[in-house]
Amino acid sequence: MINVGIVGGTGYTGVELLRLLVQHPKVRIKTITSRGEAGLPVADLFTNLRGRIDLKFSDPGEAKLNKCDLVFFATPNGIAMQQTEALLQAGVKVIDLAADFRIKDVAVWEKWYGMEHACPHLVAEAVYGLPEINREQVRQARLVANPGCYPTAVQLGFLPLIEAGIVDLDHLIADTKSGVSGAGRKAEVHTLHAEASDNFKAYGVPGHRHLPEISQGLANVAGKPVGLTFVPHLVPMIRGIHATLYAKLTQKVDLQALYEKRYQNEAFVDVLPAGKHPETRSVRGSNLCRIAVHQPQNGNTAVILSVTDNLVKGAAGQAIQNMNILFELPETMGINQIPLLP
Amino acid sequence: MINVGIVGGTGYTGVELLRLLVQHPKVRIKTITSRGEAGLPVADLFTNLRGRIDLKFSDPGEAKLNKCDLVFFATPNGIAMQQTEALLQAGVKVIDLAADFRIKDVAVWEKWYGMEHACPHLVAEAVYGLPEINREQVRQARLVANPGCYPTAVQLGFLPLIEAGIVDLDHLIADTKSGVSGAGRKAEVHTLHAEASDNFKAYGVPGHRHLPEISQGLANVAGKPVGLTFVPHLVPMIRGIHATLYAKLTQKVDLQALYEKRYQNEAFVDVLPAGKHPETRSVRGSNLCRIAVHQPQNGNTAVILSVTDNLVKGAAGQAIQNMNILFELPETMGINQIPLLP
Amino acid sequence: MINVGIVGGTGYTGVELLRLLVQHPKVRIKTITSRGEAGLPVADLFTNLRGRIDLKFSDPGEAKLNKCDLVFFATPNGIAMQQTEALLQAGVKVIDLAADFRIKDVAVWEKWYGMEHACPHLVAEAVYGLPEINREQVRQARLVANPGCYPTAVQLGFLPLIEAGIVDLDHLIADTKSGVSGAGRKAEVHTLHAEASDNFKAYGVPGHRHLPEISQGLANVAGKPVGLTFVPHLVPMIRGIHATLYAKLTQKVDLQALYEKRYQNEAFVDVLPAGKHPETRSVRGSNLCRIAVHQPQNGNTAVILSVTDNLVKGAAGQAIQNMNILFELPETMGINQIPLLP
Amino acid sequence: MINVGIVGGTGYTGVELLRLLVQHPKVRIKTITSRGEAGLPVADLFTNLRGRIDLKFSDPGEAKLNKCDLVFFATPNGIAMQQTEALLQAGVKVIDLAADFRIKDVAVWEKWYGMEHACPHLVAEAVYGLPEINREQVRQARLVANPGCYPTAVQLGFLPLIEAGIVDLDHLIADTKSGVSGAGRKAEVHTLHAEASDNFKAYGVPGHRHLPEISQGLANVAGKPVGLTFVPHLVPMIRGIHATLYAKLTQKVDLQALYEKRYQNEAFVDVLPAGKHPETRSVRGSNLCRIAVHQPQNGNTAVILSVTDNLVKGAAGQAIQNMNILFELPETMGINQIPLLP
Repeated sequence: MINVGIVGGTGYTGVELLRLLVQHPKVRIKTITSRGEAGLPVADLFTNLRGRIDLKFSDPGEAKLNKCDLVFFATPNGIAMQQTEALLQAGVKVIDLAADFRIKDVAVWEKWYGMEHACPHLVAEAVYGLPEINREQVRQARLVANPGCYPTAVQLGFLPLIEAGIVDLDHLIADTKSGVSGAGRKAEVHTLHAEASDNFKAYGVPGHRHLPEISQGLANVAGKPVGLTFVPHLVPMIRGIHATLYAKLTQKVDLQALYEKRYQNEAFVDVLPAGKHPETRSVRGSNLCRIAVHQPQNGNTAVILSVTDNLVKGAAGQAIQNMNILFELPETMGINQIPLLP
Repeated sequence: MINVGIVGGTGYTGVELLRLLVQHPKVRIKTITSRGEAGLPVADLFTNLRGRIDLKFSDPGEAKLNKCDLVFFATPNGIAMQQTEALLQAGVKVIDLAADFRIKDVAVWEKWYGMEHACPHLVAEAVYGLPEINREQVRQARLVANPGCYPTAVQLGFLPLIEAGIVDLDHLIADTKSGVSGAGRKAEVHTLHAEASDNFKAYGVPGHRHLPEISQGLANVAGKPVGLTFVPHLVPMIRGIHATLYAKLTQKVDLQALYEKRYQNEAFVDVLPAGKHPETRSVRGSNLCRIAVHQPQNGNTAVILSVTDNLVKGAAGQAIQNMNILFELPETMGINQIPLLP
Repeated sequence: MINVGIVGGTGYTGVELLRLLVQHPKVRIKTITSRGEAGLPVADLFTNLRGRIDLKFSDPGEAKLNKCDLVFFATPNGIAMQQTEALLQAGVKVIDLAADFRIKDVAVWEKWYGMEHACPHLVAEAVYGLPEINREQVRQARLVANPGCYPTAVQLGFLPLIEAGIVDLDHLIADTKSGVSGAGRKAEVHTLHAEASDNFKAYGVPGHRHLPEISQGLANVAGKPVGLTFVPHLVPMIRGIHATLYAKLTQKVDLQALYEKRYQNEAFVDVLPAGKHPETRSVRGSNLCRIAVHQPQNGNTAVILSVTDNLVKGAAGQAIQNMNILFELPETMGINQIPLLP
Repeated sequence: MINVGIVGGTGYTGVELLRLLVQHPKVRIKTITSRGEAGLPVADLFTNLRGRIDLKFSDPGEAKLNKCDLVFFATPNGIAMQQTEALLQAGVKVIDLAADFRIKDVAVWEKWYGMEHACPHLVAEAVYGLPEINREQVRQARLVANPGCYPTAVQLGFLPLIEAGIVDLDHLIADTKSGVSGAGRKAEVHTLHAEASDNFKAYGVPGHRHLPEISQGLANVAGKPVGLTFVPHLVPMIRGIHATLYAKLTQKVDLQALYEKRYQNEAFVDVLPAGKHPETRSVRGSNLCRIAVHQPQNGNTAVILSVTDNLVKGAAGQAIQNMNILFELPETMGINQIPLLP
């Protein structure tokens, strides 16, 4: 059994980690910390867990995280970077669901996240935990930077095109849409039901933190910088990411075959038959990414549609997928739930 | 392994049965029929099942249902009653998720359902499959009438009060609210998103088919007829039933203790601590019924709040619970999923 | 022209007052105050008003409210009671959309609202602004206590029954449902889209502040105290109140005729034909209350369905209706919009 | 007064036309036809109109449309083309809200709409009723082809860029999102609340009927063909279009100034301040189009955000705007409602 600790489990990523870990056959949750909710039974906060977990939130100062085999950080940005070094030295593996270790260029990170990095030397060591690209590196890692929700859907969507070298890398467009849970479980006006329901808007068009993360990932695959326009939108739904990706084709290729071949051995990437459109509910509550490939009017623009559940493949599920890899368990163990539809 | 057949699996009850049965460790789904969709791969219709089920819908005339150990009817009302007798004679057990066998008084059934009953002699044999009341009879049954969604939430809510004989049976009120999936996967204007979203209304106040079913169930427990006012409402959500029940207390009783005691051994009924209010999402995707008990201002009106997922405990999940009982499996096998929240 | 001031216009009641007043032919909005947003153009906060209002929010200390003919308080509870006396002395009329002057028994008010009342002597003078009951008193008033959203829908629903003296006053039940805007434009977790959407729950069953307000109103009509059980619920929609009311009939009466007669001269109360069910969207954005009357199975329980838009007839629209009465304008002036459907 | 007839008023476009026309000071609605609902009072179907309209739906065969000054077709595609000629000959003006007269190339129309055109000779005469481009031609017209919902939002968004000749016309991208009312008031499974709620998907990526309409409009402005990739998506909201437009800039230009200048005299196009993001609810129920202009990271990709209410500026409101122009009324008459927010 893997002894797991969770730091900061009071957000949506936290409750989703708990839902999945509670059912995982090889995990024992040892501790879950929250400064604000210390002492509160977890199942009082997250009523879906009543009867399934007995833990209370612990004070971060008192939790014995260094006795764990693995610690997940489900915290705001800037927390994991302060505690990771001590944990690694104690022999604990770390998966950070926040952004602290995602960007290799520390100056870029500091610009977009507006703070000084507390342990830049660990940034180089951290493995970016997108298993469909970095599976082997994850296997060897002590520290995994779990990807962001948009970056997962966008990178998995663009990946075969870029690996194949068949698109104009200077003009990639990612028009992305997210459910409201992507904004977290924070008391804010703009995500109130009365504000976000029956409404649709773009946000962050001048610049969003996931832009440098995606650009870095795509550039790594391409072997050179890419030009990406990234526009996120807020959808009046709870869970789900839909990325609509546009790229100019520079060669004639059977796109459908390309995608099917690339992902044929991936348990969590499903390439739909030609002509289909994935919908977010077809992955709700699951660790799947479903992708469809289009080339409208047989023109030279490829249109890729990629959907995930932002809390699962975009966060907690992918973190557990990384855990399974780290601990040499079957990659689908405990995260093979069938999506909930309707 | 139990060899299972499903008749009529193209509705929401059907897809939910499939989601749960596919994951059930003791079930092999042999056939699923649909007159309209015969030949279509199930996973083409229900994209959440892609990669998890290889079956196609079969023509009802060609499906070998009598080779199954158990057949679920997930059909409109009036179908099961035409096919059940032959199946029982072939030694197949039957669980009907529709209403054909729920009402013992055939004349009452015919009045509310507007058709003649095709096999009234089987109505008497059928066991009403609310395990929290009829577990032992279910164990012996060949034919189980799976309860309706409202009746499940309402009966579980009223049950302890009526068993204890402490309320005025002439003036029970059930103000109930259902998500839109309760209306089924049928092309109708009134349940379109543009009609049902951002809206709330009552319906069927002059009379709803679940009224005689609930009245029968409560009368069975009370040992005499009850006076029930039943008002259903349509909620702009996908899944969930919320029953708000009112009864006039005729004695002083510790209601909280009464409910906790009544349900202490029930795996799927969760009595919340005093003062709490259950929410439908706390049971989303699960077979749970969560109940809270109130006595506002210490007056003589008991207010009981009871929530379920109409597609699980109100339909497919309860049907599998009944299957587990019929086949002497652990009652929670395969239906112990943690609710999806948020 | 009526010179109008608004205190505290940054909530949903505020924006709705502005939407309606901007279009009112006899109103000039002189000032709108907000401590937190002073200096901000109103149309920057409420983008629906771009191009329709030039005002900025003023600092409350600098707004010349006593130069107005009328001041609306669209503030949290406890603010109006501190400023009303000075305004009245300056000859300004006041309509309070909060609860400060709604409850005549100051001790009861202080218990439910958890604060000491700042000007109990004005409570007696204040007129409860439900025009369908108190139209004549409103006409004479200096200070109007605008009713709460639930109290408007519930009182208009029960009124004919109680005036007619045909129901058991000891066992009235109001099962009420509200859209999320009723909770206000406040950053809180429980009303986030990811929490309140695709969900349904009751709240405040042990006690809600609208209970004493409704009880007072009904008792005034009845001439004696009433026994009311009041259970509010939160609906995943933006606007709308649906009250489902239950009363035990003590006499045989033609309920449909009773309601039609009672409201035949009321511009804003619409009694539906027998057998119908009102829906909240049929009043969305309008000052209407639509009511349907049922007597299921011809039993002795009357079921009344009453719907309003909580921000219009339940708040801003009714306040303007009261203004029209106070200033001897046609009662429907400026608030005669047709509901938005779908 | 303008005597108006409406053909086919039982859809969402119909009820929205009625809501607006009932309040229009210069309009008298003489007749509204529906084959299916003949004899039914309009307000029984559309309960928001109770008390505001006395008409019943007429049988199309008996309606005296040729006595009207103007007839609106709010019908499915293919109806108006059969009746328009007779009406024009009787001196009646016609505004078609369907697509029969939008596409000048009849062969293209027949390919996309799958039927033979009944009166190709009138196609040339018809004026495409986007007043911000064709106001003068509309003024002279007998027959107005009212634009589609997506085409309105997309063309108004791209227009200044194309008029200015500063973008690569071969690679325009319109990623568009629509509320569910855009699919009409038709009983279909895919737009049920239980299907479309809490979900997001693209559709019609291989080809959508609005593609040739938009391409034609943009080509007219450009003076040559354009290359457009058009991807529509379905949003779980009732009303609203959000177009996110991408174009490669070929010159350096102050985009904000360009847009503000282009639309400075347009009553219904609102260019937001730099850096803002329009939201669909900011135009809900109104005839406005709000536009924001971005140039992320000062790169060479322009990102234009354009929102409308698909039933108003995208259909009924624009039709009335065209009517006002045709009959030399102030262009904003009767369609100057303030958006409903929240």
